[in-house]
Amino acid sequence: MQLHDTIRAIVWKKDRLALLDQRLLPAEERYLEMENAGDVARAIRDMVVRGAPAIGITAAYGVVLAARNRHALSRRTWKEDIQQDLDMLVSARPTAVNLAWAISRMSEAMAGIEGDPFSPLLALAESIHQEDITANRRMGELGAELLPDRSRVLTHCNTGSLATGGYGTALGVIRSAFGHGKVKMVYADETRPWLQGSRLTAWELVRDRIPVTVLVEGAAAQLMRNGRVSWAIVGADRIAVNGDTANKIGTYSLAVVARHHGVKFMVVAPSSTVDMSIGRGEDIPIEMRSPDEVLTLAGRRVAASGAEGLNPAFDVTPAGLIDAIVTEKGVVLDPTPEKMASMMQH
Amino acid sequence: MQLHDTIRAIVWKKDRLALLDQRLLPAEERYLEMENAGDVARAIRDMVVRGAPAIGITAAYGVVLAARNRHALSRRTWKEDIQQDLDMLVSARPTAVNLAWAISRMSEAMAGIEGDPFSPLLALAESIHQEDITANRRMGELGAELLPDRSRVLTHCNTGSLATGGYGTALGVIRSAFGHGKVKMVYADETRPWLQGSRLTAWELVRDRIPVTVLVEGAAAQLMRNGRVSWAIVGADRIAVNGDTANKIGTYSLAVVARHHGVKFMVVAPSSTVDMSIGRGEDIPIEMRSPDEVLTLAGRRVAASGAEGLNPAFDVTPAGLIDAIVTEKGVVLDPTPEKMASMMQH
Repeated sequence: MQLHDTIRAIVWKKDRLALLDQRLLPAEERYLEMENAGDVARAIRDMVVRGAPAIGITAAYGVVLAARNRHALSRRTWKEDIQQDLDMLVSARPTAVNLAWAISRMSEAMAGIEGDPFSPLLALAESIHQEDITANRRMGELGAELLPDRSRVLTHCNTGSLATGGYGTALGVIRSAFGHGKVKMVYADETRPWLQGSRLTAWELVRDRIPVTVLVEGAAAQLMRNGRVSWAIVGADRIAVNGDTANKIGTYSLAVVARHHGVKFMVVAPSSTVDMSIGRGEDIPIEMRSPDEVLTLAGRRVAASGAEGLNPAFDVTPAGLIDAIVTEKGVVLDPTPEKMASMMQH
Repeated sequence: MQLHDTIRAIVWKKDRLALLDQRLLPAEERYLEMENAGDVARAIRDMVVRGAPAIGITAAYGVVLAARNRHALSRRTWKEDIQQDLDMLVSARPTAVNLAWAISRMSEAMAGIEGDPFSPLLALAESIHQEDITANRRMGELGAELLPDRSRVLTHCNTGSLATGGYGTALGVIRSAFGHGKVKMVYADETRPWLQGSRLTAWELVRDRIPVTVLVEGAAAQLMRNGRVSWAIVGADRIAVNGDTANKIGTYSLAVVARHHGVKFMVVAPSSTVDMSIGRGEDIPIEMRSPDEVLTLAGRRVAASGAEGLNPAFDVTPAGLIDAIVTEKGVVLDPTPEKMASMMQH
């Protein structure tokens, strides 16, 4: 690891998976260890780990644990028995396509395995993990090239080492650009209701000595109006063939506000986030989470009893509001279905 | 008081002022009693009471307490001595012009008083308070006329009985429209960082049996895109002569997003909120509050130590994004300086 890149949240430890519990950050840095697919699915659902690429990688390691355990129970039927583990993992969260993508890669490899699946599957999971970091570094360089010198960038949610195998997508671009001396300040939306911005992004950037200022989502528009934002840079949970992008709730609002002010808007995600089976954003499934995440704060009810809550975890930003989509395969400016298809064929 | 209007947060009790401590709502309903101007200024600064009209009324009662106390100390010099109390009250918060407006009205009346000022000043403060409620009811009717039947409205911050003498500005329009059977649902932005939406607006509406759904600011745009919002309705802390409006941080973002979706945007405020000495929004002073309000949650630091915070309490929405400004003097559609001046002369 290098300067400005010191954090790893997903760690394989010989015979088990260790995940940094992101619900406790930044107050506490505690790794939870998992020995079976049930633990892993629960960790994904309960947001011990979050971020589209990170949950894909986590699920891949989950398949390793499932295969080892199923194989130990029955060498004859493990490939059938494991199907329920795969179903459980893939349905842990609905919006990020990386989850299905990683499990599908593991599944294909499984089909050709004779004998003990542990070593070959672990090797594949580690390779998926390493590919993600490599892709992030490549995206970091590609995205950084788009930024002017002395940039002030605004980001939403957390898209860093915690959300990926390491380094990050949008935050990887920011890390790379900072490494090249191009970033003066990172503005981080606090990102309600989970506060990934203030809890996670600020923690990562402080750890890696990159200047960060936290603000409420509602303050971003005024900041842009005052000319204090060069680019808004975000990640993605799923990208449709036409470039429409599902990402953390609040992203679409940010894109509208950026366009209104002529602030450029960049989406950064590995090509595994592009879902070639979905033509447009309207068809991306959006996870609705418990209203309690909005109605309570630090475990205490905040809104009066009797009030309802609406808590979509993601929204969809239409391609027309996106100036650049950056993947490890290349950069698409002003995305169209044709440009997206051409980029994916690289 | 009537149906859908049961809350009063500012109560004069014979010889003292009682304020509902809005920092504790909705968990606890506790009134704090004040006997001097220092208590009152502190209550305004620390947001025991907030909302532009409410802090104006509170300051008027603060002048009553100051006059009584100064007059008791010296019948000869009280009118000079009280100046420091007035300065303290007027500087308790900078953005809402109602504060200066109310103190100026009290001050003018003071000049003509011979003998004990308590009774005449209390009568004036009570009259300012009652005028505000009357204005709110009038605005409620005027604004409600603009809404279509079966409206779903979205509001930001708290603009109800808690933010005014009673009934409310934007929430007064919503109360009136609900009374006329025109409102199906009220969407309330939770309104970070103080959560006036989830803590106060939801509490008021539940108490008055009006259906309310709380959402994070970031979810408003997607709700509009899905066609689920008829009007966005907000209050104001200061309105410039040209209609530019300072209001709670996040209002400007909401106005941009509303315009993008063709959702109408209404500002509701008494004419005392219009500052005829300020030509345009850029000249309205914007209060910067402590970064801790963004960096901490329920008293605990949330953002990593080392992260900065940016915490403007208000932003400015340009008149061009506002479809209607409603005051007790009338409705201005598509505000211009000429229309605003004509309305103010009524």
